[in-house]
Amino acid sequence: MLITPGKLLAKINAPDDLRNLDRTELPQVCAELRQFIIDNVSVYGGHFGASLGVVELTVALHYVFNTPDDQLVWDVGHQAYGHKILTGRRDSFYTNRFYGGLSGFPKRKESPYDSFGVGHSSTSISAALGMAVASQLQNYPKRHHLAVIGDGAMTAGLAFEGMNHAGSTDADLLIVLNDNCMSIDPNVGALREYLTDITTSPTYNKMKDEVWNLLGKMSKFGKSAQEIVSKIESGLKSTLLHQSNLFESLHLRYFGPIDGHDIDHLVSVMNDLKDIPGPKLLHCLTVKGKGYSPAEKDQTKWHAPGLFDKVTGEIKKKVYDKPQPPKYQDVFGHTLVELAEKNDRIVGVTPAMPSGSSMNIMMKAMPERAFDVGIAEQHAVTFSAGMATQGQVVFCNIYSTFMQRAYDQVIHDVCIQELPVIFCLDRAGFAGADGPTHHGAYDLAYMRCVPNMIVSAPMNEQELRNLMYTAQSDEVQQGGRAFTIRYPRGEGVMPNWRTPLEKVEIGRGRKICDGQEVAILTVGPIGNYAVTACELLKNEGITPAHYDMRFVKPLDEAMLHEIFSRFDKVLTVEDGCLMGGFGSAVLEFMTDHGYIARVKRLGIPDAIVEHGEQIELHRECGFDSEGIARAVRELMFAERGIIV
Amino acid sequence: MLITPGKLLAKINAPDDLRNLDRTELPQVCAELRQFIIDNVSVYGGHFGASLGVVELTVALHYVFNTPDDQLVWDVGHQAYGHKILTGRRDSFYTNRFYGGLSGFPKRKESPYDSFGVGHSSTSISAALGMAVASQLQNYPKRHHLAVIGDGAMTAGLAFEGMNHAGSTDADLLIVLNDNCMSIDPNVGALREYLTDITTSPTYNKMKDEVWNLLGKMSKFGKSAQEIVSKIESGLKSTLLHQSNLFESLHLRYFGPIDGHDIDHLVSVMNDLKDIPGPKLLHCLTVKGKGYSPAEKDQTKWHAPGLFDKVTGEIKKKVYDKPQPPKYQDVFGHTLVELAEKNDRIVGVTPAMPSGSSMNIMMKAMPERAFDVGIAEQHAVTFSAGMATQGQVVFCNIYSTFMQRAYDQVIHDVCIQELPVIFCLDRAGFAGADGPTHHGAYDLAYMRCVPNMIVSAPMNEQELRNLMYTAQSDEVQQGGRAFTIRYPRGEGVMPNWRTPLEKVEIGRGRKICDGQEVAILTVGPIGNYAVTACELLKNEGITPAHYDMRFVKPLDEAMLHEIFSRFDKVLTVEDGCLMGGFGSAVLEFMTDHGYIARVKRLGIPDAIVEHGEQIELHRECGFDSEGIARAVRELMFAERGIIV
Repeated sequence: MLITPGKLLAKINAPDDLRNLDRTELPQVCAELRQFIIDNVSVYGGHFGASLGVVELTVALHYVFNTPDDQLVWDVGHQAYGHKILTGRRDSFYTNRFYGGLSGFPKRKESPYDSFGVGHSSTSISAALGMAVASQLQNYPKRHHLAVIGDGAMTAGLAFEGMNHAGSTDADLLIVLNDNCMSIDPNVGALREYLTDITTSPTYNKMKDEVWNLLGKMSKFGKSAQEIVSKIESGLKSTLLHQSNLFESLHLRYFGPIDGHDIDHLVSVMNDLKDIPGPKLLHCLTVKGKGYSPAEKDQTKWHAPGLFDKVTGEIKKKVYDKPQPPKYQDVFGHTLVELAEKNDRIVGVTPAMPSGSSMNIMMKAMPERAFDVGIAEQHAVTFSAGMATQGQVVFCNIYSTFMQRAYDQVIHDVCIQELPVIFCLDRAGFAGADGPTHHGAYDLAYMRCVPNMIVSAPMNEQELRNLMYTAQSDEVQQGGRAFTIRYPRGEGVMPNWRTPLEKVEIGRGRKICDGQEVAILTVGPIGNYAVTACELLKNEGITPAHYDMRFVKPLDEAMLHEIFSRFDKVLTVEDGCLMGGFGSAVLEFMTDHGYIARVKRLGIPDAIVEHGEQIELHRECGFDSEGIARAVRELMFAERGIIV
Repeated sequence: MLITPGKLLAKINAPDDLRNLDRTELPQVCAELRQFIIDNVSVYGGHFGASLGVVELTVALHYVFNTPDDQLVWDVGHQAYGHKILTGRRDSFYTNRFYGGLSGFPKRKESPYDSFGVGHSSTSISAALGMAVASQLQNYPKRHHLAVIGDGAMTAGLAFEGMNHAGSTDADLLIVLNDNCMSIDPNVGALREYLTDITTSPTYNKMKDEVWNLLGKMSKFGKSAQEIVSKIESGLKSTLLHQSNLFESLHLRYFGPIDGHDIDHLVSVMNDLKDIPGPKLLHCLTVKGKGYSPAEKDQTKWHAPGLFDKVTGEIKKKVYDKPQPPKYQDVFGHTLVELAEKNDRIVGVTPAMPSGSSMNIMMKAMPERAFDVGIAEQHAVTFSAGMATQGQVVFCNIYSTFMQRAYDQVIHDVCIQELPVIFCLDRAGFAGADGPTHHGAYDLAYMRCVPNMIVSAPMNEQELRNLMYTAQSDEVQQGGRAFTIRYPRGEGVMPNWRTPLEKVEIGRGRKICDGQEVAILTVGPIGNYAVTACELLKNEGITPAHYDMRFVKPLDEAMLHEIFSRFDKVLTVEDGCLMGGFGSAVLEFMTDHGYIARVKRLGIPDAIVEHGEQIELHRECGFDSEGIARAVRELMFAERGIIV
């Protein structure tokens, strides 16, 4: 089913078409664009509130600036649906986030209008500054460079690093601060409070109006306007405002705050700003979910609501006739509270993912012991390390893909110092529809090479609970090793998941079933595929053994000695990168101990795997149940010359 | 030789002894401490200017605060010599940075006064905040938490993330901003300019004096002083200053700037600040190298000058009777300029290491094309990615250990987007005297698991030049893969290093010498140890083959097929972690292709290796020449039952 666009939107196949419209038609374009997004997301799913909030910004930017020659970078990018629809992808937009379809984020390969690929937050200032400096070097002053960044993304250190550099250059850079007070959850931290202060200060707003009035007048004077504006503005600042500004402190000229939903005013302001050289910041106030009332009211829920009835605002939930397994994240959230009730040294840390990680369960139950530190993975880890020095038992929950941001802190602040911080890596393995920027593909490889680090992955809910229980035990905490527990996005396999908590021996795997000829070694929930594979194979008279290794580090050496003594055909399976991952660890063991076996490794290949449902990607990479069964057959029959 | 301390310093075995002194004696303590540092470093080496610059701060902090119960975190930590000397390590200080001796940085295992291990910059605010929050949770309000951080370290995003969080808490945190305008090289960026602005503003300084006068009076009023001070201060701000402040914007109460060398004033101010609750920042102006005139004059040179004559200020240089090989970093620096002269798309990026990486050669030769972005590795990489989107050929030079800070940016902003940024990782392998925080131990493992990434290591200067030449070639740039070249700290092996530039085939190794029975596979300059090992073994009639693989990714598969077809005993050697590194890559190849061989892997074990000369650490880990020879013998004779 294709969504029918409104009559103006239907004619916009590229921003040039938009720029040919009369300025008075822009409100209508905005309305149609907003409706098109609502129509699409309600039936095909995807991110929602963020794109609704920037409809006017999107239209204004493409109307005023000469994209794609002007370089427009969307921070994070889940708000770029309007951008995609206006830049030639309207009719394919229904494929958004589906396997083989459009990416849910800007992506350089997809369109020349996507000047920079995104997904993680806070990269836009640095990237756009790089572009701006390149334009200077190439002597191409007419090109503009735009970074659209949310107030949530501004809390990350990378954004600050970019501003610190930008403010010391004369590069043509316009930072559009899309201030909606939100990350996925409400934004936190001192910067958030500051933005609220300057947004609500009457003095400040009075000044702002005067500046803008003057700016408006000045821009008519043409070429010398810049100088005049500059003088007046600084005059205003010293006489009217008597106040410096955080962004001005960093030598970014600050404009705003202005209403980010007033399309006409946005167009005027951006036209003015085109003529003002150097790095500058335009502060726009927007409402996440703007124009769709349920989304405005509950912004976290409507960040990515799933399918919904666009008329009633009812979010569609699947109805099941029997109890379903919980999400791993909820098992984490509830178990954390259960443990924290008994162990008062336990605290929780999340970098801006209270609802995504289910840390919000602890934040509600014991608010003084659970910390949302904003989009700040580096700080989350070093802050955790600081608490650990004082004997707190810290559960630091970071998505696997975002933990890449805190790699140095894991090594330098935690592991070198032998601090027993517990890292719970959600969304490990394939993230699904979010695609390659969000896949948690590398964690087993990059974590296991760090000394003083335990790396584990539970096969199911019970195992997750037991690993968490183990990690917080005195014995492990006194051992001085960090403890990584990585688990995937989505549901587990156990409808009755509230199992009694039991300690797990560190570095001890489980034999799931004994068998002949081939040993299958798995880590994490893809072990359940192996269970199914074994059932499939049984019908063919093939009965491999299956071991859930549970720990990638330390490996269960006793179990591996047993395996390599008994089997000369071994299959390893992981939902992580094959280069340096779990399978490689098994090869290291095998070679170090002089065993000889034929080993086949299944996992994520050395390539960028695109987006799609997790099962689609597992299948593509050959480690779904059928892929595992096929690999077992290959191991068994290939050497006998039978083609499988 | 032990250095003789002055008579006051000789009695200070712990900060309690310092606190027993009369306040009037502190200038003498400072003078003696400064002299002790000069005496020591001039004959034993080490970092220099940073510690001289914080002598008064160090004495004041330990005099006023109740260390080690109060938690004192030194950012980076190379300025903590005075701290070490005052906290029980005076008489062992001559072992500083030597194998088996004191660490050059604060280290938790070394002393209870070292509340947090450091080495990398900008961690102190996050760590101290973690401690402060833990004290709140443990209901221990009397403990103070101190982070001493330089203005250079403030440019890193982690520091901003920490401030953003701290400003939204009421934690007892005092950030001491040690503002000396320097990183190792002069500090850069907008924040630096801002600090200069507020330091030199007469209005600001007038206000400051008044605040301090009032504060001084108020602190005599005891308990209610806090409230009164608070009122007066905010009154002053609105009526006198009419100016907000960057740190105040982040809800940190700002005090200063004050003279960081006025010990008496420092003690007064810190005593006042003890009674002021919540997060606050004290801005202290210091001079790097203070009190030793040559060091004050050339602060970069005297950051870590090596041995010197303390009377004349002459830095001692070894004299050689024949030409010596250059440092790898200088080969990088000169070759970069040589390439950039011919390829005008080449640019260089360094995060605050112009002299350490020798990027300063290009900064001098073509200042508009070489960028020092401050201590900001994340930004350095994303900024590089932004430039690469516009066709610039970017050499982004980051120490191996600091690249851990930009891991996500390498994956998310460079490799997923297929941008051909060239990463030159200096100080790969063991960093030497800087120790575990600085060892570049993990790069081969964490880089090779990333798709679209070439990972290489030159065996000598010529190879480094050729790899750089290859990386910037059109062919490689158009291939869309990032290109990592990692090389060690220190000198190479070729006095005549200005060899003609030649292209290297990507993923092609070199056979250094043919041989029998055992194949030695090396990457990087430790290949030169293997050459020596082969010579040693030759005398015993053992003649292994030696291959310099050059690329860890892609591996030279043709060469590996040859090796595994001819040899069933293979030794891999790398100066990187054994877990997931080069040797593991060879095992992956071997197993994937069904070869069977006895493989021994030499490299950095899964443990924290402490500091020492590189050769001492190579020996410790068993991959110096003798270690390699021993491993070859083991491979050859072990199975015949001969004990080596």
